[in-house]
Amino acid sequence: MKRCDVAVITNNSSGINLAINLDRKEYHVALYDVDIVIDGKVTTVKDQNTRLISTDIQQIYDLSTLLLILDDPKIVFIIGDNNVFAEQMLSVLKERLDAGDIVIDCCNTYYEDTANRTRSFEQMGILYLGTGLVGDTLKQPCLMPGGSYSAYMASIDILQDLSDKHCTYMGPDGAGQFVKMVHDAIEWSILQLISEHIGVLRAGLDLEYEELHYLLCDWNSKETLNSYLLDVVADIIGRYDFESRRPLIDIASDVVGFDLSSSWIGKSAMLLAVPIPTLTEAINVRFLTYMKGERQAISNFLPSFSIKVSGNESQSYISRAESSLYICLSLTYVQGFDLIAKASDMYGWQMNIGDVAQAFSNGSYIKSRMLNRIVNLLKKNRSYKNLLMDSDYLRVSTSHFPSLRRMVATAAEGGYPMPCTFACLSYLDTVAQSKLPTGIIQLASDYINGSGYERIDKDGVFYADWHDPNSGTRSIKSRT
Amino acid sequence: MKRCDVAVITNNSSGINLAINLDRKEYHVALYDVDIVIDGKVTTVKDQNTRLISTDIQQIYDLSTLLLILDDPKIVFIIGDNNVFAEQMLSVLKERLDAGDIVIDCCNTYYEDTANRTRSFEQMGILYLGTGLVGDTLKQPCLMPGGSYSAYMASIDILQDLSDKHCTYMGPDGAGQFVKMVHDAIEWSILQLISEHIGVLRAGLDLEYEELHYLLCDWNSKETLNSYLLDVVADIIGRYDFESRRPLIDIASDVVGFDLSSSWIGKSAMLLAVPIPTLTEAINVRFLTYMKGERQAISNFLPSFSIKVSGNESQSYISRAESSLYICLSLTYVQGFDLIAKASDMYGWQMNIGDVAQAFSNGSYIKSRMLNRIVNLLKKNRSYKNLLMDSDYLRVSTSHFPSLRRMVATAAEGGYPMPCTFACLSYLDTVAQSKLPTGIIQLASDYINGSGYERIDKDGVFYADWHDPNSGTRSIKSRT
Repeated sequence: MKRCDVAVITNNSSGINLAINLDRKEYHVALYDVDIVIDGKVTTVKDQNTRLISTDIQQIYDLSTLLLILDDPKIVFIIGDNNVFAEQMLSVLKERLDAGDIVIDCCNTYYEDTANRTRSFEQMGILYLGTGLVGDTLKQPCLMPGGSYSAYMASIDILQDLSDKHCTYMGPDGAGQFVKMVHDAIEWSILQLISEHIGVLRAGLDLEYEELHYLLCDWNSKETLNSYLLDVVADIIGRYDFESRRPLIDIASDVVGFDLSSSWIGKSAMLLAVPIPTLTEAINVRFLTYMKGERQAISNFLPSFSIKVSGNESQSYISRAESSLYICLSLTYVQGFDLIAKASDMYGWQMNIGDVAQAFSNGSYIKSRMLNRIVNLLKKNRSYKNLLMDSDYLRVSTSHFPSLRRMVATAAEGGYPMPCTFACLSYLDTVAQSKLPTGIIQLASDYINGSGYERIDKDGVFYADWHDPNSGTRSIKSRT
Repeated sequence: MKRCDVAVITNNSSGINLAINLDRKEYHVALYDVDIVIDGKVTTVKDQNTRLISTDIQQIYDLSTLLLILDDPKIVFIIGDNNVFAEQMLSVLKERLDAGDIVIDCCNTYYEDTANRTRSFEQMGILYLGTGLVGDTLKQPCLMPGGSYSAYMASIDILQDLSDKHCTYMGPDGAGQFVKMVHDAIEWSILQLISEHIGVLRAGLDLEYEELHYLLCDWNSKETLNSYLLDVVADIIGRYDFESRRPLIDIASDVVGFDLSSSWIGKSAMLLAVPIPTLTEAINVRFLTYMKGERQAISNFLPSFSIKVSGNESQSYISRAESSLYICLSLTYVQGFDLIAKASDMYGWQMNIGDVAQAFSNGSYIKSRMLNRIVNLLKKNRSYKNLLMDSDYLRVSTSHFPSLRRMVATAAEGGYPMPCTFACLSYLDTVAQSKLPTGIIQLASDYINGSGYERIDKDGVFYADWHDPNSGTRSIKSRT
């Protein structure tokens, strides 16, 4: 058998496409695709391998042979559908690889697990890259590797070739998987926000899908809203189902699938104490779509959307939706980058948020003109703060706030559900208050549990004497 | 030394109060309170022990003696400030106790950890109760034990005595700690919702705190809003700080503390795929209060709340706030019970939600007339469904929906932050839609990742041929 430069271990078509991509870039690829057993049924990806015939990819059916024909240092990509597969393959690789070999793990993994994997490989001197992967592995996937910088430098050529240079080193440990997780959450939020605005437009204007298609194409042609995802949705809205001859969108179920990885973002935001209400509401909506029985029962008792817009007002209704969508998408990026920056601080990843934004703007699904503007802003100002603290960013944003306010009010009064849109305004108005009414919560905790409260006029923790018979209340500073 | 019936191991004043409570109920109590070292500093609770003088509590300074003077089966309460303490003490107890002994663990613990502790004690035949505890340990705490039913039956007398019968067995494993976690999240949401409504009332009407105090007392006297927490807040609002002679609420910082346990609810809702947006927004607000620098900077660029209510409209503005608060509190309970019910299903706890509600309505912080009504409703209908699916519950609720709608619209237009209130309306309007616009999200996923979509007209997963040159789109059903 001929020698190979690189191995790909996979159990899905993404992995096979990655192998084909490497083959086209003139690497000698060894491919090991694994039949896996799920619920007692053998699932295979081999029927897609007919495409392999026109390549020089060497297909291997056992791991020992695979490792035998690899040149040193061995470079092994691993890319699969689930973590059971990843864990199995990685535990075998850990035993069979030598110091200096390179593992590029592209499996979708919770970043804390990636950090653990990185440590356990690095203890053995094996170079390990937990790599976030977005996009089409056959063409130019966007790669977000994390791990030791030396591991990245050792594999930089093949990663840049594979991704047509859409590859940015994110930082140590699980940094790459963390960024990929935030990417996906932003993607879902954007799609949810688009669908909320489409919903309210249709409900208020009784638009046909064809009109909506042209409207979205128009929005997408503009500087403000131009983005990959809006382009995708505009295309989808214009499609008909051949069989039923109805708009495809009417045929599709409204129940949106999710797996456990969908909720990692919520778990990590809670762990890091970063508010990302828009991103988590997008996941809550997925959970709500599954409550079909509840939704059908409850809908019988509530009137449907009651706001109808008449001819003259149509244009301003449409413009307001456009402006509201713009600022919602903007606030989604704000929250996403805030989470990444705070994770970087907490874990000591020393990430450059401008580089992360740049990575997203190249080849990822959330690329947009808005993101390009954010990249430019972040490149000017290297020390990252919440984007809203940048006066230029805030100035551009403020002109859109009235549309968001009006949109929320309209949806609230009319009974149209816009959970992510509402969460955008909640985030904006809370983060813009120098004084919140939350002092009550601190005092209530002290009242109930004696847990103390902080004051604005001096430092320390104070305990009010709630049993004081006078109307006034004495407070005692903590003894500690 | 005299023999004892029960031991209390603690490092805080809650534990000492629990010992005093047991002593008053005529138990012979052995108390082991532990000096703990945090950040190199010895923290002691002993200075509070002067109260012990008038009791028969036997204070013990080492664990071996403690266990020696306990009658068999040994009954040991453990109650402490943090999980490091709990883990240390439990690991020692595991080695020193015998089959048939009883551990009642009242430390605040993530329910999955409680489930693990339960298993490891039960393997040794030790009866272990992971017990949620709410309220004043000196008087009548509300106890929510979880673990094997035989462990509960073995300790039922002492638990009922300790709590003056405010004790309900919740289910196996971590059920007790799960319910306590939801209780706390509901408590925070209620406090947050009250503070949002107080904030918007003050901002719109320029109310003095004294006027607000009487208004809240009036609300609390009514059937609809009467509750422990509103009573607490009404009292707080009327208090003055002796030192500064200003309202205490003006002196309290708006930064609300939290520890890791605050965010368990968000983590578990994500794990169980249950939407509880109001409960998680209450935690997001805590995170946002900490972003003081951001809040101060951004507030300079945004106008403050702009809605002012004039004389004639004041009364309807106040009534609307009352009605909006009512329905928000109601939707908070709806989400909390939904989470408990779904956790019970997933973990096979077979909980009776009526019993849980009953437990909350006795002695817990979230007790209220509204909860009593929910208890009555759940007792009639033993098979739990989302409360909104109950037509009686929904009928009573619907009369308040217009106030919530108006409140959200007012806050949105005026720029007043009401994140939990917004989340209530989002939840309501999403769960009340038989058809959501989320089909777009499924189709977009298929478009981007080829992940397939479901249809309303037939079962299965379908893949649209997005490259079809026709405007119509053929779909192919999954091969599997």
